[in-house]
Amino acid sequence: MLLEQIQNPNDIKRIKPEDYQQLAQEIREFLIQKISVTGGHLGSNLGAVELTMALHLALNLPEDKVIWDVGHQSYTHKILSGRKDGFDGLRQYGGMSGFPKRKESDFDAFDTGHSSTSISAGLGMVMARDIKQEKRTIISVIGDGSLTGGMAYEALNNAAKIETNFIVVLNDNNMSISENVGGMSKYLNSIRTADSYLDLKAGIYNALRGTKVGDSMVNRIRKAKSSLKSLVIPGMLFEDMGLTYLGPVDGHNIQAMVNVIQEAKRVKGAVMVHVLTQKGKGYAPAERHPARFHGAEPFEIETGIPSKPRNVANYTDIFSTVMCKLGARDEKIVAITAAMPDGTGLKRFHNMYPDRFFDVGIAEEHAVTFAAGLAAGGLKPVVAIYSSFLQRAYDQIIHDVCIQNLPVVFAIDRAGLVGSDGETHQGIFDLTYLTGIPNMHVCAPKNKWELSDMLKFAVELEAPIAIRYPRGAAYAGLEEHRAPVVLGKAEWIYREQEIALFALGSMVKTAQQVRDILKEKGYGVSLINARFAKPIDEEAVLEACREHRLIVTMEENVSCGGYGEQVLECITAHHQTNEILSISIPDAYVEHGNVEVLKQEIGIDVQSCVERILQAVNKEN
Amino acid sequence: MLLEQIQNPNDIKRIKPEDYQQLAQEIREFLIQKISVTGGHLGSNLGAVELTMALHLALNLPEDKVIWDVGHQSYTHKILSGRKDGFDGLRQYGGMSGFPKRKESDFDAFDTGHSSTSISAGLGMVMARDIKQEKRTIISVIGDGSLTGGMAYEALNNAAKIETNFIVVLNDNNMSISENVGGMSKYLNSIRTADSYLDLKAGIYNALRGTKVGDSMVNRIRKAKSSLKSLVIPGMLFEDMGLTYLGPVDGHNIQAMVNVIQEAKRVKGAVMVHVLTQKGKGYAPAERHPARFHGAEPFEIETGIPSKPRNVANYTDIFSTVMCKLGARDEKIVAITAAMPDGTGLKRFHNMYPDRFFDVGIAEEHAVTFAAGLAAGGLKPVVAIYSSFLQRAYDQIIHDVCIQNLPVVFAIDRAGLVGSDGETHQGIFDLTYLTGIPNMHVCAPKNKWELSDMLKFAVELEAPIAIRYPRGAAYAGLEEHRAPVVLGKAEWIYREQEIALFALGSMVKTAQQVRDILKEKGYGVSLINARFAKPIDEEAVLEACREHRLIVTMEENVSCGGYGEQVLECITAHHQTNEILSISIPDAYVEHGNVEVLKQEIGIDVQSCVERILQAVNKEN
Repeated sequence: MLLEQIQNPNDIKRIKPEDYQQLAQEIREFLIQKISVTGGHLGSNLGAVELTMALHLALNLPEDKVIWDVGHQSYTHKILSGRKDGFDGLRQYGGMSGFPKRKESDFDAFDTGHSSTSISAGLGMVMARDIKQEKRTIISVIGDGSLTGGMAYEALNNAAKIETNFIVVLNDNNMSISENVGGMSKYLNSIRTADSYLDLKAGIYNALRGTKVGDSMVNRIRKAKSSLKSLVIPGMLFEDMGLTYLGPVDGHNIQAMVNVIQEAKRVKGAVMVHVLTQKGKGYAPAERHPARFHGAEPFEIETGIPSKPRNVANYTDIFSTVMCKLGARDEKIVAITAAMPDGTGLKRFHNMYPDRFFDVGIAEEHAVTFAAGLAAGGLKPVVAIYSSFLQRAYDQIIHDVCIQNLPVVFAIDRAGLVGSDGETHQGIFDLTYLTGIPNMHVCAPKNKWELSDMLKFAVELEAPIAIRYPRGAAYAGLEEHRAPVVLGKAEWIYREQEIALFALGSMVKTAQQVRDILKEKGYGVSLINARFAKPIDEEAVLEACREHRLIVTMEENVSCGGYGEQVLECITAHHQTNEILSISIPDAYVEHGNVEVLKQEIGIDVQSCVERILQAVNKEN
Repeated sequence: MLLEQIQNPNDIKRIKPEDYQQLAQEIREFLIQKISVTGGHLGSNLGAVELTMALHLALNLPEDKVIWDVGHQSYTHKILSGRKDGFDGLRQYGGMSGFPKRKESDFDAFDTGHSSTSISAGLGMVMARDIKQEKRTIISVIGDGSLTGGMAYEALNNAAKIETNFIVVLNDNNMSISENVGGMSKYLNSIRTADSYLDLKAGIYNALRGTKVGDSMVNRIRKAKSSLKSLVIPGMLFEDMGLTYLGPVDGHNIQAMVNVIQEAKRVKGAVMVHVLTQKGKGYAPAERHPARFHGAEPFEIETGIPSKPRNVANYTDIFSTVMCKLGARDEKIVAITAAMPDGTGLKRFHNMYPDRFFDVGIAEEHAVTFAAGLAAGGLKPVVAIYSSFLQRAYDQIIHDVCIQNLPVVFAIDRAGLVGSDGETHQGIFDLTYLTGIPNMHVCAPKNKWELSDMLKFAVELEAPIAIRYPRGAAYAGLEEHRAPVVLGKAEWIYREQEIALFALGSMVKTAQQVRDILKEKGYGVSLINARFAKPIDEEAVLEACREHRLIVTMEENVSCGGYGEQVLECITAHHQTNEILSISIPDAYVEHGNVEVLKQEIGIDVQSCVERILQAVNKEN
């Protein structure tokens, strides 16, 4: 086993070149084996094995810096930088993160998680290097999917003007999580699929470029071009933007990549190295179903089938089904995703109504303003974006949707704690950033039926509205409570006296369990399903104030700007003097781990809630 | 006067072609005369006179739709769509907006204000048109400056795949507000400055294109190219991205533009019409100093000199001065602006430390993550972005700066009400979106000395921190109160009993005046300069609770997630029962108008505050 020789950082440099392929094979087997147990990002990591090896061979890490865009493809990097033993605890609470983390290793130059940030961060590190007159190579590794994010373009536009070395490796596997979209994808495809004539020319071109004699020959080759095809000299678009382009290079040929990286290091300025890789390479199920193996649950290696088949519907499924029904009923309904047709559940809508479905790529800003345009044009757009990614489009919600009061529905999946993806993916800010926006409406369903009812309500509202719902199994309890959804109205589920629990969305289930325990202890407990975080049901709050000593708010969002603060403001504005307890996420990032464990850690699980409520009640007495 | 014939929409269609130039001239004189009185955006409007005339001539408005990117160049459009009389009340409260507003006219297809949104919105309207099977032409007009915003690229990338007509007019004046930056700007410049040989070819190319015979000839022309220059066939970069490119066209030749727009309407797909214009055209002072006449105060027409010369320093000036001092003291300090070297006051820093200054173009997302990269590289970046534009980088602050706890200083100018630019530019959300972010610190100075002290404090903090300060004259009062800035500590200015005013930033001045009035009425009033909105000074709040009946918070931010809610939460968490009054901006967008008038309208001026406080005190008694 060559992999046994990889214990400490840079051990790979002691491996003989003729053994590289064997080591790559062993790394693949290691990744498949480990991820099959813990779950994690498989396809992107299998695609980047040789690329990562080439980077570790060609660079002097950690003095040199590699910034991994998105970061979920950094597993091989973790193996090669001495973290092989961390894979048993991958993405588990207290264990190794599935993303680069500066606090985890010096080899992780910059934390990532969201898309399209690496070139900006890398360029910042380049400028810092130059100002401090340091010598180091800085490389941002970005996928072709991340290149659909406008931020990457902003960074390339700025990188074009520098005069010192900065390498951007374009890890092009012709897909992001799902199929890629748009002009850039088509352009990259034209390079990928160029015939061997072009490959040959690219080879010569790359071989010559950068030397004095070579440069003049490159010019002569360029001059010699005489067909329309000459205009697709590889990467001319990037050259036009002011970058040096090298490639395309076979992303599974380690020596070729080492060579081109060495060449790239000699360029004075920003250079793009275009590397062609295959997502899921070396594991047949992942090659066949790359979307399914993007972020995989534990699976059987033999078949690729999930070890624990899912047998309950999650909120995404409910959203998916209801969208299809609504689409049949109302031809004005259109759906938008930012590169997540599977993750958001819109794939079925796409299949049924292809003309009313839009996958805009990883481009949340565009997605939202595009939806505003659709609404201004008389349609009813539903934009499905995860909570943490919608942060990208905060200004577009304020500026393009809400000022004009356009009827855009935001379907916000992964709101609240998401678990193993950790800090960058927790959806714990959306109540804060959305409820502060004038004209916006925000609601959250207590169970699966309510998601359906809220979605139907939302598409008829004729104003901006967001529905937030969590990752994972949809709650199927409380099915007998299905009062019609009314704007800004809460739903009284149990009405007693003493303690009133105002729970929003996912916390209704928690509150129900909390109530059972408190009841056993002899307390009278009302449970109110808040439904709307904007506008809140002031009438229900004031009614509760009259009949209860303690008012408790429960939400899966940071406290600042959340639901609880609004209830508090209402109570204070109306001069009520009830004791108030606000249960929410503390002011700190929440790491990766099992959601139930995380909830205990931050004190919003059933037991913690009970304890905090008892404490508040006893203090009061 | 031809302009007298322009009263109602589409009156321009009755003007004879030989009179177009004369009308353009009269429109310019009208704009200069009106803006010299009211102030407003001059340069961009002078540059777009003929382009707007051509659009009104070539299109069937308002059935056809024009989306103006940013929107400050829409004055001629307002004249030609029947709003000439609105210019006397331009940008004044109750008067005509300086930006397109759907509620103002059917001819305004989409509200704009921030940059780079028009292609996304236009594409949405195109899709809505196609789904509804309507016939209309949709045109987004975007400046070359706005093209540095990544969102525009996201939209172009998506526009590339459509198969029905969508026209993007690139209004290229080779500058945005300030000088343009980056690879795209250089590329456009290469088209602008191509020699006449190229112009000739472009002319032929454009003349032929789109007809069957012509297309085959175009291909032959392309094949005939044989020099390196052939690779800069105009707009090849856009063609590579999948757009049809037409141009460049002289943006002051009306007939040429009408012709190219007619031609563009026949293209099946997205087509970019590249129009070359001159910012400030026809008014010598604006041609010479385009940045100064971007957004102009009232000025003398003869000289271009402001009618009321500014004789007090504003906060921007203070920031500018202190940054230069800090730059001398600490070589690690670097400064970043997103296309606003003048507006943010960083121009002097640029002049003094060119290697430590970065203008990234209109690219707020990149600006923030680039700063994170600079910080990760060991420097101390100060990012100066207006409050409403920083909304664009919300996710980058959460994801790239604060998770890693990187020492980035955010200098947030135009925080609070900005006045005549209106809804899109009011900086009334930053406390909400920033204080909810873990690891972030947020402060606001009471006067000009405190801005200086806070900036010095911030660059030494070694953690993310934002300083927010308003547009306009820096407050020079309370100069004897200059307690050292301590993290999370408020400053007691007057300490009495009965009423405690906790005022943040710009509201300290207001609170001081409020206090004088309340004192006259016999009340005891403490004034506390809050300084920090995160973390708030809980000790000061609780101290105040003990000694005062009424606690008042005052801030220039929406109430949701603002400073007041945090004070409220602190008071409630500590079981205090004081009466509380929170003065903040109500939950509604604030229109354009004089800041003092706006403050009265929304109830945060001195008189309104006094009334509200008296009401609260009397209620309590």
